[in-house]
Amino acid sequence: MQWISDSSILIIGLGLIGGSYAKALKALGFHVSAVDTDPDTIAYALENGIIDRGSTTPDPALLGTADAVIFGLYPGVFKQWIAENQHLLKSGAMLTDVTGVKACIVDEIQTMLRPDVEFIAAHPMAGRELSGVENSDPAIFRGANYIVTPTERNTPAAIDWCKSLGRILGFANISTLSPTEHDEMIGFLSQLTHCIAVSLMTCTDLRHLAAYTGDSFRDLTRIARINDRMWSELFLCNKEPLLRQMDLFLAEFTALRGLLAAEDIPALREKMRLSTERRAHFDK
Amino acid sequence: MQWISDSSILIIGLGLIGGSYAKALKALGFHVSAVDTDPDTIAYALENGIIDRGSTTPDPALLGTADAVIFGLYPGVFKQWIAENQHLLKSGAMLTDVTGVKACIVDEIQTMLRPDVEFIAAHPMAGRELSGVENSDPAIFRGANYIVTPTERNTPAAIDWCKSLGRILGFANISTLSPTEHDEMIGFLSQLTHCIAVSLMTCTDLRHLAAYTGDSFRDLTRIARINDRMWSELFLCNKEPLLRQMDLFLAEFTALRGLLAAEDIPALREKMRLSTERRAHFDK
Repeated sequence: MQWISDSSILIIGLGLIGGSYAKALKALGFHVSAVDTDPDTIAYALENGIIDRGSTTPDPALLGTADAVIFGLYPGVFKQWIAENQHLLKSGAMLTDVTGVKACIVDEIQTMLRPDVEFIAAHPMAGRELSGVENSDPAIFRGANYIVTPTERNTPAAIDWCKSLGRILGFANISTLSPTEHDEMIGFLSQLTHCIAVSLMTCTDLRHLAAYTGDSFRDLTRIARINDRMWSELFLCNKEPLLRQMDLFLAEFTALRGLLAAEDIPALREKMRLSTERRAHFDK
Repeated sequence: MQWISDSSILIIGLGLIGGSYAKALKALGFHVSAVDTDPDTIAYALENGIIDRGSTTPDPALLGTADAVIFGLYPGVFKQWIAENQHLLKSGAMLTDVTGVKACIVDEIQTMLRPDVEFIAAHPMAGRELSGVENSDPAIFRGANYIVTPTERNTPAAIDWCKSLGRILGFANISTLSPTEHDEMIGFLSQLTHCIAVSLMTCTDLRHLAAYTGDSFRDLTRIARINDRMWSELFLCNKEPLLRQMDLFLAEFTALRGLLAAEDIPALREKMRLSTERRAHFDK
């Protein structure tokens, strides 16, 4: 399908990201509908003009007319939804998602999917500490990365379509990675950093230190406020890559501890110089 | 001494913090002079009106007339400076410092100090990634913590004087801790977090990932750009408390890894909920 303005787009799971997609696509003139099991979510979205139509069940009238379907579900629920409801989708529909892990879902879904619809996976790397459609805002896409993770099962047309979606949503950088490359990257840059922030908050009861914290500590632990249901599922789905990244970090941190214990100043300074040099590549 | 506007203040070591003190105190009308071994630093400070007088050596004319002396030196150099030059100080002078570790210097300096001058230690918890007098700016004190670390050797008058200094410099919160309490707190909130950021940057060569980094990773590693000479010395000076904090974190991170490996979702979620609850106390 092309991105023509009379396309009908259906969002399954209207949370922070799904809601932000809905707002952005409505503003571009598309017909946007949504399915979410929470009646309050659908009522809020209809009342606030975020969607044109909505349902708390997989309404055949919505599923059967959508040219594109965007999935904003947790990995387990996503796979279950496809298994149970894919027969209701319109022939020729294009499916994509916003899931933060890829290898554990893409192959399984592409294998079970009807041959007359196509699933092209994507990860919009945007978010905030708050969740829910009430906090959705397409502004979170500005300056952010959007990663398409095609497999050999995907058609060039679907890959182009999915990249176009990222562009019209307003993402700054559109790139492609294999599902495995994506998961290694996310394991390091996102999941490992969340594990570190959580461990820092749970390793000691530091409420009495709150008065002394500076910006460094606040920056380091901002992501320690975490949706436990979502993140525990994402961690499990990416278990092996994340364990590898955790082990890399553990070995390095333990080595740094050893240098301090041995008072090996030259080696400590060398680590710090390497850190400083590498960090310079990450400045915006 | 009181904070009267004709007091003469001498800053030893005119770096980022010393320079920011100089600018703030000059603006308040004090006579400010400085000693720094770097001729460019002194020339820059004189040319830009940051100080009234300056020297690259412990000039007896400056040392002998200062009512207050503020030390912005690394711990080892600081102790050596006192041993070599304290005989040149004016009788009755009040000494303070800006050093980021306390137990390793306060006792030693108070023990060797002439009985007619007093050293009251303080830690202005302010800084930025850039160093040097050229980057000094008293605005870094706004909203920041200033901690006085008195011992039983200090007089109530000196403690009050030192707190007043924090107030007139513009710090938001003035508090007192013992040197040992201070070092435990700094070991956790500042030094441990720097060790984590450095380890995260050095554990893998991640330059190819720069395109995918979001704000979380940038926030977490901002402090990975680190002055290796200063921080390695501060780590060594606070070795035992820092090793204790590193071990606490290591044990907790290893436990989190174990929960993931065992796929213990309820325990993983419990850690995340505790983290989220605790982090809420740290919001500004």
